[in-house]
Amino acid sequence: MEESTGALPRKDDFSQWYNEILWRAEIMDVRYPVKGLYVWYPYGFGIRKRAYGILRDLMDRDHEETLFPLLIPKTEFMKEAEHIKGFEDEVYWVTHGGTSELDVPLALRPTSETAIYPMYSLWIRSHTDLPLKLYQIVNTFRYETKHTRPLIRLREITSFKEAHTVHATREEAEEQVEAALALYKEFYDALCVPVILSRRPSWDKFPGADYTVAVDTIMPDGKTLQIGTVHMLGDHFSRTYDITYEDANGDQQYAYQTCYGISERSIAAVISVHGDDKGLVLPSAVAPIEVVIVPVIVGTRRDEVLSAAAELESELKGAGFTVKLDDRDMRPGAKYYHWEMRGVPLRLEIGPRDIDSNTVVAVTRTGRKVKLDRRGVVEGISSIFAEFRGELFEAAKQAMADRITVVATLEEAASAVKSGVAVAHWCGSQECAEKIEAATDASILGSDIRSDLVTVSDGPCIACGGKGTSTLIARTY
Amino acid sequence: MEESTGALPRKDDFSQWYNEILWRAEIMDVRYPVKGLYVWYPYGFGIRKRAYGILRDLMDRDHEETLFPLLIPKTEFMKEAEHIKGFEDEVYWVTHGGTSELDVPLALRPTSETAIYPMYSLWIRSHTDLPLKLYQIVNTFRYETKHTRPLIRLREITSFKEAHTVHATREEAEEQVEAALALYKEFYDALCVPVILSRRPSWDKFPGADYTVAVDTIMPDGKTLQIGTVHMLGDHFSRTYDITYEDANGDQQYAYQTCYGISERSIAAVISVHGDDKGLVLPSAVAPIEVVIVPVIVGTRRDEVLSAAAELESELKGAGFTVKLDDRDMRPGAKYYHWEMRGVPLRLEIGPRDIDSNTVVAVTRTGRKVKLDRRGVVEGISSIFAEFRGELFEAAKQAMADRITVVATLEEAASAVKSGVAVAHWCGSQECAEKIEAATDASILGSDIRSDLVTVSDGPCIACGGKGTSTLIARTY
Repeated sequence: MEESTGALPRKDDFSQWYNEILWRAEIMDVRYPVKGLYVWYPYGFGIRKRAYGILRDLMDRDHEETLFPLLIPKTEFMKEAEHIKGFEDEVYWVTHGGTSELDVPLALRPTSETAIYPMYSLWIRSHTDLPLKLYQIVNTFRYETKHTRPLIRLREITSFKEAHTVHATREEAEEQVEAALALYKEFYDALCVPVILSRRPSWDKFPGADYTVAVDTIMPDGKTLQIGTVHMLGDHFSRTYDITYEDANGDQQYAYQTCYGISERSIAAVISVHGDDKGLVLPSAVAPIEVVIVPVIVGTRRDEVLSAAAELESELKGAGFTVKLDDRDMRPGAKYYHWEMRGVPLRLEIGPRDIDSNTVVAVTRTGRKVKLDRRGVVEGISSIFAEFRGELFEAAKQAMADRITVVATLEEAASAVKSGVAVAHWCGSQECAEKIEAATDASILGSDIRSDLVTVSDGPCIACGGKGTSTLIARTY
Repeated sequence: MEESTGALPRKDDFSQWYNEILWRAEIMDVRYPVKGLYVWYPYGFGIRKRAYGILRDLMDRDHEETLFPLLIPKTEFMKEAEHIKGFEDEVYWVTHGGTSELDVPLALRPTSETAIYPMYSLWIRSHTDLPLKLYQIVNTFRYETKHTRPLIRLREITSFKEAHTVHATREEAEEQVEAALALYKEFYDALCVPVILSRRPSWDKFPGADYTVAVDTIMPDGKTLQIGTVHMLGDHFSRTYDITYEDANGDQQYAYQTCYGISERSIAAVISVHGDDKGLVLPSAVAPIEVVIVPVIVGTRRDEVLSAAAELESELKGAGFTVKLDDRDMRPGAKYYHWEMRGVPLRLEIGPRDIDSNTVVAVTRTGRKVKLDRRGVVEGISSIFAEFRGELFEAAKQAMADRITVVATLEEAASAVKSGVAVAHWCGSQECAEKIEAATDASILGSDIRSDLVTVSDGPCIACGGKGTSTLIARTY
């Protein structure tokens, strides 16, 4: 496909950098002729495939994968008043099949509660059917009227992993909320993406939920990106959709439910958190190509070098690495540029001198260069990847910590959110939230903060001076 | 979930059998409140996951996976006159976003040519970009007005694997058609599903294609099920969507294209070809559970048996098998019924006597019983699975061969298609096709037959007596 030329904007200019890296690193093509819909380049889809492979493995430990229809009849969709109110401006409606008008319009799922829960009502009979923990990875749709942005604000979310669980008691559902948060934390750990958890204010929870705990990361421009949500649904939906079970005494009881989701924003986070002025930087766990081999061809030993490179490729493939041998007839510098842009974590260079000394030169995407013993190359790479992962995660945590400021006044909060996130005490009232939001031009993101990077405490609300708890104030995507 | 009770209809009564096995074996739930849309049970989705894993591995050898949007603007969709004519009565239209009417209605893809090819026009510049071989696995939509049937005739095809390739020359595109057919054959071999390939008559080819070669299997009721199609598109779409490349001489050339697809009909084929009066029969390659362990608990050695069963489970999991230990407090007969219905290829029974003699009793889904040495159990199972696979495939081929009759007259053809497929000589004219179809109440499926089960030849057309070639006549799903 088209090769990019010219320099990537510096990452300090984050918005420009983000837009450009998407096509220069062949992640998304934004030229699809409908606003808010984008095309995955194969390379970008490769990142998605590996990241969702990790997510699937985590989910499959104690969830089962399934698949429900995209189209939801308006009649089912409208049953849950609070829920539909949260989505009514955002739903795409199918009104025609061929040239005929449909009797009942069909919604493109914005999320699948109203598709799944009528079936749960049929499936769940007894306490022995519980807990039920299912998930699906599907496309969902939002008619976004705001500015759209690839991977972040979409009209077709192509990769929505949504889980829907059913439990006998409220306590078990609350435990599931915690289990889901732990699972999401583990997922983002694998991606080396540091996160902050917080409980959303009541006006910002999922429509129909008792409460919502969200997973956020902080982007390079200091704005937060919500990259996961876990909702405690209580018995709200089970009463609407009649999801009941017979308990051990033979009595019918309403079930308790949770749901939780992660989208391709997870990929936006990986790109944004780790990337640098030269392009993507990918942890090996999500890199479609983990190792690129560049033969250094000089003079007369061309065939020997190419054959040594091919041998190396085959050994590494055998060891389970995804490897690309770049034997194109180009100058090495152009190859380095190409693979650095795409975030390949490790480049191996092999030339006549390396063959003579039985070594290989390894250069990480962040520039660390080591000579590896050719015989121990597999172990050498594994150990470089482990270190590289640690390095990326530490750097990301440090960058995130630097973007969090503990503040004691509205003025300090207003100043802090210009370049990051403020942590302040807030009493929990909507009135004070409005004051804080007006004074800072930012949002109350959430309370009950959980993060290694923030120490939480009680203290006076920065708006009214009443009793408050630590709360995140942020500009958000 | 709900456990089925009562007997499965006999497979001779295929239509009833098919409908009932879908819910009794927990494959699809047909109670979703929109006609033609169905819900995958987790168990059924497990079969789909394994089968599509095989397909992905085959595709990934020399294709790249990608993802294009579901929604296609009417303006793009309408560009290809012949193509749209083939689909215009079947397209779902999104006309509203929230409460506003959209400026341009959006089609739910019935297939993705019109979504993908405008992007190919941007991506392909030079002969060095070719060949381009991409695929995606997506949901597609058809507003079916005919009778719908789970996995076979759907309004939402949930699992459409479509590939779209671009080549410099017509010859290379034709070679790709052959490569795709070989790949599909390999896929169905892995599923132990025998197939017949044939070239569709011109009026039955893909709208916009030069020609279509289809992959069919024969269902137990003698009707054929089309389970894969490969289309030679020529330069038809490249001229409409302006897909050109600069050749080595610097001249602009139109590219040649192919596309080919497989849907969840592949799962319908596995179910229908192998199942029997007791339920599903799954080759281990697609079984969500390959081995079920049933501890035989008698008298006082309960704990010892359960612990031996758990040890066996853990050893088999370690060896890479998907294993279920069924230690429910139920009589063994009920457990056998449960897992036979779900097609688990192998049941292991372990009780006090087996512990004493250091053996395990293995029973295949088709009833072959062997005693395995406990120490060599992993090798024993691998060898049983290899034999089981051979047995299933041979039985399926034999059943298919029995449903094919070579005929020499219209009367013989009419009789043969009552219970299977007729192979007759046909001259290729539409007039004779109409005569044959009227006389047999069946369809001309295709010519240029390729199958180990059929010997092809030239001979007099059974309608006009003119020169004809071997042609399939069949009732079709």
